[in-house]
Amino acid sequence: MSQGETPNETPSSHDRRTFLKTAALTGGVLAAAGIPFPSVVKAASSPPEPHQVPLPANLPAPGKANHWFLPATDKTVHWGYFSKNLKPVIEIESGDFVTLECLTHQAGDDYERMIKGDPGAESVYYWNKQQKNVNRRGAGAMDAPVGAGGGEGVHICTGPIYVRDAQAGDILEVRILDMYPRPCGNSEYKNRTFGTNLAANWGYHYHDLLEDPKPREVVTIYELDTTGERNWARPVYNYRWGPLTDPFGIIHEIYNYPGLVVDPAKIQANHGILKNVRVPIRPHFGTLGLAPKEVEIVSSIPPNYTGGNIDDWRIGKGGTMYYPVSVDGALLSAGDTHAAQGDSELCGTAIESSWTGLFQIILHKQNSLAETVLSELNWPLLETREDWVVHGFTYPQYLTQLGPDAQHEIYKKSAVDLAMRDAYRKVRDFLMRTQKLSEDEAISLISVAVDFGVTQVVDGNWGVHATVKKSLFAGSQD
Amino acid sequence: MSQGETPNETPSSHDRRTFLKTAALTGGVLAAAGIPFPSVVKAASSPPEPHQVPLPANLPAPGKANHWFLPATDKTVHWGYFSKNLKPVIEIESGDFVTLECLTHQAGDDYERMIKGDPGAESVYYWNKQQKNVNRRGAGAMDAPVGAGGGEGVHICTGPIYVRDAQAGDILEVRILDMYPRPCGNSEYKNRTFGTNLAANWGYHYHDLLEDPKPREVVTIYELDTTGERNWARPVYNYRWGPLTDPFGIIHEIYNYPGLVVDPAKIQANHGILKNVRVPIRPHFGTLGLAPKEVEIVSSIPPNYTGGNIDDWRIGKGGTMYYPVSVDGALLSAGDTHAAQGDSELCGTAIESSWTGLFQIILHKQNSLAETVLSELNWPLLETREDWVVHGFTYPQYLTQLGPDAQHEIYKKSAVDLAMRDAYRKVRDFLMRTQKLSEDEAISLISVAVDFGVTQVVDGNWGVHATVKKSLFAGSQD
Repeated sequence: MSQGETPNETPSSHDRRTFLKTAALTGGVLAAAGIPFPSVVKAASSPPEPHQVPLPANLPAPGKANHWFLPATDKTVHWGYFSKNLKPVIEIESGDFVTLECLTHQAGDDYERMIKGDPGAESVYYWNKQQKNVNRRGAGAMDAPVGAGGGEGVHICTGPIYVRDAQAGDILEVRILDMYPRPCGNSEYKNRTFGTNLAANWGYHYHDLLEDPKPREVVTIYELDTTGERNWARPVYNYRWGPLTDPFGIIHEIYNYPGLVVDPAKIQANHGILKNVRVPIRPHFGTLGLAPKEVEIVSSIPPNYTGGNIDDWRIGKGGTMYYPVSVDGALLSAGDTHAAQGDSELCGTAIESSWTGLFQIILHKQNSLAETVLSELNWPLLETREDWVVHGFTYPQYLTQLGPDAQHEIYKKSAVDLAMRDAYRKVRDFLMRTQKLSEDEAISLISVAVDFGVTQVVDGNWGVHATVKKSLFAGSQD
Repeated sequence: MSQGETPNETPSSHDRRTFLKTAALTGGVLAAAGIPFPSVVKAASSPPEPHQVPLPANLPAPGKANHWFLPATDKTVHWGYFSKNLKPVIEIESGDFVTLECLTHQAGDDYERMIKGDPGAESVYYWNKQQKNVNRRGAGAMDAPVGAGGGEGVHICTGPIYVRDAQAGDILEVRILDMYPRPCGNSEYKNRTFGTNLAANWGYHYHDLLEDPKPREVVTIYELDTTGERNWARPVYNYRWGPLTDPFGIIHEIYNYPGLVVDPAKIQANHGILKNVRVPIRPHFGTLGLAPKEVEIVSSIPPNYTGGNIDDWRIGKGGTMYYPVSVDGALLSAGDTHAAQGDSELCGTAIESSWTGLFQIILHKQNSLAETVLSELNWPLLETREDWVVHGFTYPQYLTQLGPDAQHEIYKKSAVDLAMRDAYRKVRDFLMRTQKLSEDEAISLISVAVDFGVTQVVDGNWGVHATVKKSLFAGSQD
């Protein structure tokens, strides 16, 4: 059974879960000696399957809480889309903990540093003339010219996780308890790991360049420390990307399909770039969210009311996301981990790298929401120790707002101005609802104390976030 | 000689400066007993004139540095505009220090708390049937229906300061060494001072309201501490503004002219609002900048390449601004001091309050700029201890970009999207120029480490700022 199949052709959720908990993993991860690089990604050994493991010693252990380990393998990921029809990879109860691996979808930018020697990554990226372990990449047609799924959506998403009893109208709380960088599997790079930044054809800068040739796509590789000694990333080298011929013989003039593996012999690597630069790391989940009910399958690129590719670097360790549940089981997936990103993610990507998250997942039933901060919440809310972060988008419900071709229309409508309007309305309503303010009180408070930032200008459905300090409400009127 | 005269009809800069240093202040500040509130703002005593005073003991005293005291009075302010034809109130040398008072232009929202007993404020706001001390308010026609100057520009600006030897092409560095809240002059409010937030007709929210009546303008008064015990502001009360009849009998249905004084008997004050809310203070200069050469007189509202009403709350104590000099003497003015503001200044205003700044002003001649961070700088740059802040606008050179009616056209063109585009280009060019990066290096660094925020969406020429951490460049390549 391949994740490359169209989701609504697959067995029921329960069957799938049972399979993953009981069956030995077979197939997919094949030895492929003798086939020339880069048309093969070789799998050194089989990656593990999902299983329950003891809770880390430093965590609270409520009565029934379980701790799941969910590795990223070709059997546990869906690539480039969310779908309500996907078979869950695990089924959990409210309160359970999950350690979940994420793989960057751009690891092919440097195979030696981001795939080689990593069984999970090798299984996901495995693709040669005969075999492509994860065939569907994106929500597009399976016979799309650029490849199955059309690259309409790019992120390797681990999941989905089925949360027992979750139904439309509930709120799913996802606590990000910790994040760990995924060590490089290649023994040449001990205690290090890597990430990649692509100045992409979908970047904000792409048609607004000074230097020739125009346009161009450029990959910059960054090095990260896995020992915890450094909290910054270091630029290593860059190169001009493409064109590239994939293992099935399709020529990609631009970076229009995920999982393409670059042959280092075919690029011109520039070392000594960005000398003396240290990029502060801000590890976070670029993509984290639930499947929406509106369509059978949806690109992972535009963020939605159910979350997804929000690309807010604040969605990291210590943060808690609240998502409106749209379908039975909620169907939570995670991916697109970033080591660092600026507000705007200007060139189309962050430092894309593989990280593992430790989550606790808590279901709030609709009938328990009244008089809480979650009542009437119909968009993805972030809570941190200091702040509430309200996420506005160009079209907050784009799948229903933009007609039957919404998934393509959204790219023609991208606008910071509309996202700003949405963020204003959401934060006003949030303050009125949760703090019992009049509209006049809310508007004054927004103007004097709430900061609006540009989340991203690269995901079709562009984002503006509004940050509300919790300390605003900590005083007592004197 | 009144600041209400058309600027280009006034004497030369030098004459004016001599006048201010030598002549006794006469006229303008008149006793006006017996005329009913609010058509009169009574002046208790004459405010001081500009003069030199010893440097504060804690400041460095370079060889020739002088320290000027520049009070805000009806003789030292220009209301609602910049003009290259304005007579300077002082003439200084590069390196001089200036203690400069600013008065909020919205003090009339609560006369008792923000004008009464303050000779400077009383002199500026003085307006009854017979006399209006500062007649021109804005860059519009002197016979405009709403009042002289048409309210096309609203900020009470103290200055201009003529910097000797400054010429077009130079850069003026303005160091904000300190900021002090202006104590309330009314003895009823000891150790306190106040600010006002107006949800204005030019606010982003004005035509996007939930509650009736729509639209409406609302004033919220905030209380500040002048003793330094508290670093937050406290909401006091709010009220619905207008209509209001000014001392000349003109009825203002909306807040369309600055300096209108509200009669407390004619409003319905709502106390107990925003209970338990503490607004963190972020004192800053909303308006700080130079006169541009392009026009004879220009509204103070849209920010420009010469600075002005940037409304970035980071332009406060410890910050340094760098402005391109456009006219001889630079002609620096300051006003629109804010106690606090969120990024976006959503409702049209911040906590508008009166503060005094201590500045040091340093001229960088054009021929000294090569190979410095200031070379080719043609927009207003902020430096703080941690950051460089790049200011983008909808139209960065709007006076020349939008044709002969640019000062009105700009309000029809307001867009966050265009300001974002400008901020991207500026920060890219800034990184390439000052850090000697290639375009590819700059774009990658922007995407992974530079944050874009919404400065303001209320000043016609809307703003997006890009924040570049200095620490990015602090490392050594290992």
